[in-house]
Amino acid sequence: MVKRYQVVDKKIVEELSGIVGPDFVIYDDAEKLEPFSHDEVADTSFAKMPEVVVKPASAEELSAILKLANREMIPVTPRGAGSGLSGGAVPLSGGILVSTERMNKVLEIDKKNLVAILEPGVITNDFNDEVQKEGLFFAGYPMSLEMCYIGGNVAENAGGGRAIKYGVTGRYITGLEVVLPSGEICTFGGKRVKDVTGYNIIQLLIGSEGTLGIFTKIYVKLLPLPKAKIDMMVLFEDAQSAIDAVPLIMNTMRIIPTGIEFMDKISLDTTSEFLNEKKRYQGAGAILIIELDGNDADQIREECLDIGELCLDHGALDAFVAEGPADQEKIWKVRRHAAEAFKAISPVQSLEDIVVPVSNIPKLIPLLEKISEKHNVIMPCYGHAGDGNMHATVVKKPEQSMESWDQTLPLVLEELYIAVKELGGTISGEHGIGHKRKKYLPLVLGDVEIEIMKKIKQAFDPNNILNPGKIFDLD
Amino acid sequence: MVKRYQVVDKKIVEELSGIVGPDFVIYDDAEKLEPFSHDEVADTSFAKMPEVVVKPASAEELSAILKLANREMIPVTPRGAGSGLSGGAVPLSGGILVSTERMNKVLEIDKKNLVAILEPGVITNDFNDEVQKEGLFFAGYPMSLEMCYIGGNVAENAGGGRAIKYGVTGRYITGLEVVLPSGEICTFGGKRVKDVTGYNIIQLLIGSEGTLGIFTKIYVKLLPLPKAKIDMMVLFEDAQSAIDAVPLIMNTMRIIPTGIEFMDKISLDTTSEFLNEKKRYQGAGAILIIELDGNDADQIREECLDIGELCLDHGALDAFVAEGPADQEKIWKVRRHAAEAFKAISPVQSLEDIVVPVSNIPKLIPLLEKISEKHNVIMPCYGHAGDGNMHATVVKKPEQSMESWDQTLPLVLEELYIAVKELGGTISGEHGIGHKRKKYLPLVLGDVEIEIMKKIKQAFDPNNILNPGKIFDLD
Repeated sequence: MVKRYQVVDKKIVEELSGIVGPDFVIYDDAEKLEPFSHDEVADTSFAKMPEVVVKPASAEELSAILKLANREMIPVTPRGAGSGLSGGAVPLSGGILVSTERMNKVLEIDKKNLVAILEPGVITNDFNDEVQKEGLFFAGYPMSLEMCYIGGNVAENAGGGRAIKYGVTGRYITGLEVVLPSGEICTFGGKRVKDVTGYNIIQLLIGSEGTLGIFTKIYVKLLPLPKAKIDMMVLFEDAQSAIDAVPLIMNTMRIIPTGIEFMDKISLDTTSEFLNEKKRYQGAGAILIIELDGNDADQIREECLDIGELCLDHGALDAFVAEGPADQEKIWKVRRHAAEAFKAISPVQSLEDIVVPVSNIPKLIPLLEKISEKHNVIMPCYGHAGDGNMHATVVKKPEQSMESWDQTLPLVLEELYIAVKELGGTISGEHGIGHKRKKYLPLVLGDVEIEIMKKIKQAFDPNNILNPGKIFDLD
Repeated sequence: MVKRYQVVDKKIVEELSGIVGPDFVIYDDAEKLEPFSHDEVADTSFAKMPEVVVKPASAEELSAILKLANREMIPVTPRGAGSGLSGGAVPLSGGILVSTERMNKVLEIDKKNLVAILEPGVITNDFNDEVQKEGLFFAGYPMSLEMCYIGGNVAENAGGGRAIKYGVTGRYITGLEVVLPSGEICTFGGKRVKDVTGYNIIQLLIGSEGTLGIFTKIYVKLLPLPKAKIDMMVLFEDAQSAIDAVPLIMNTMRIIPTGIEFMDKISLDTTSEFLNEKKRYQGAGAILIIELDGNDADQIREECLDIGELCLDHGALDAFVAEGPADQEKIWKVRRHAAEAFKAISPVQSLEDIVVPVSNIPKLIPLLEKISEKHNVIMPCYGHAGDGNMHATVVKKPEQSMESWDQTLPLVLEELYIAVKELGGTISGEHGIGHKRKKYLPLVLGDVEIEIMKKIKQAFDPNNILNPGKIFDLD
């Protein structure tokens, strides 16, 4: 069955203006609509213009918009900060784009229960700055935290570099107020840590990429802010010895680091050359950057030194523990500039988000080499070693034509994803499927698994008006 | 529409015997069937006999059973150890009871990835004993761990006393192989810590009380086992000052205890009298038992002493830190014997599982007093103060007749649940709805919220054959 969506006409726009006020509707103005046509996916072929942008200020306004859209069969795409990396906020079928930018209030910080209630448009880092003043923190830690909205974090179940110790966003969400595609407003959970009252709709909604509902209130669990944090870097001869160190630290020392970042040889060589720091990493075929946090700085430093010793005993080439902020900066520099170094080679790239069991990261490296050689592309591998989430990036060589690249990329991705699946992994650890990875979903999920997801979508959204065409297409 | 379930006849029993072997089918033997008619809910009116008990040994056998049941419209109830507290494993409509007791193997302990793969019938504590030998542990911690199966933990999203630091069972499940009501076998997740490939079906299945699928493989995340653990007890004048200490510890000291148990005055008085230890708790109107764990015993002891000081500065009457195993035992004795003390008064009880935001526990106490006075029952309140999950228990006074009790209890529960909702809480933190609390669900969830859960049930189980009548009734 082909869904027949309605075009947004003047009558609809008037009705939308009546709901949110004319100042908060953008229509018939290509220049103002354009920023809402894409997220942070580099490839512009994934962009699509909305017919109208609407900026509600409350759950009630949002409810009225969805009731209208559901009645008139107009697709609705929710959008946070637009920092997504899988095209989740792109209005694929045109229609109404709902921006949550005006719903940006921290409604409550409840220090007694260590819970905050936020509207979806709060910027993650702004919120963290606010709670850190109280000695608390929100442990969700996406890399885009200076820009991204908490609503988007929840919609994508954002991860980041600290999942090994702190888990991902979903762990910290105890309640959601959500507007369903029908326009109905519901609430699941609240300020309680435990709740088994019926199905866990909260965790189903988290990571559903804006296809099941739009959040209007988010209950976020807070943690006491650790008083100290220390970073260290360890150089290894190759990926295998670097990754072997991860379970050693956890099993032998019984320490869960805050984060363990990894860079393979090609990432390290390219980035250190880009930074003119090749000498620092002489002989290294892989590095780990390890973060520890806790309340006792001396103890953490001691633990870092012990980790260094342990790694050196197991064949590491060298280890540095940061002695102060300047050192921390030096340690992170090479990791922070990896994306930039490869953009200097070519801005035409596909940033991937594969995840494998940690112990299989070393097996991934030769497979990436094989695939990149076969297709004549560059494929560095760096990312979150602690949780196996690797941002392997397919980079076009400067000499390759765009036409050839467009033909090559899908072949590279397919081979990459099949290899990842064979290693017990999957195609997205934190960026989501969106429409960027939609066609590859059947490579890692079976028909039955996808079918049950489609049925859930239909249970929430029988008219398929909310963010249609994301994750999968309905038949 | 009234569902017309088929009666299990000899032909069906033969077919079931063909699937699992005749030794693993119990039929037409009331004595052998009886143990499968109830879980640990005290009230026998919640019991119901199965028509046949089947014990499959594999996902394939279970798949064949469900295909048969789905085809013939026979209800199927999954059962783990039968340690549940909400009637979840009771075969309400008769039919087939599937026991997972033969699927009891630890399939793999992967020390490199800190993941284990278990069949559902593994006893939680047996598994923990096994991984502790490797310096690891599974942080799910239900109180029934010496008896309960991991499959039941996952089906109920079991909690326990350590949720404040370690969360509940769901946090540790990274993958599930599950047989759907249709008999199809699917797998979601695996050994990966991060995964946003489509909807989070894993977390939807966790806590779904055996109504959406039956688990056949469970991927469990392991943690490094802390090297040390110390308990302490703090006596307070009243509930308010006890509960006020909880955010103080977390905010001022930035420590998340492993667990914080609470007992109110009536629990403390009754249990200490039962134990002949009334003198020890002279003047105390509430106690907290606080557990800390970590790798450095000296540091934890220091932290315990600091917590003691902090509490005394804020009006606590007394504080004890355990100096060894004998002390630990002494500290826990009063909490461990609370249930027994009230059973000595009357075995006729309703064990409740309410949860409120921690800061509202003190408001709960006078409400419990008011309700119990009004209805002339006893209602002690003790439980997991760290996460607000209180096992308030309605106890019949010895002089009350059973007839009067049967009339009183539903009124007490309704008033209790309404009070809990008004305090931002809900009716079950870890035991589940099952059929014990089914009729009260609309007190805490709205029509829209329940409707979406029913639609999800229908998406998974259109014939409503899997554990029907639990959580809610389908129309």
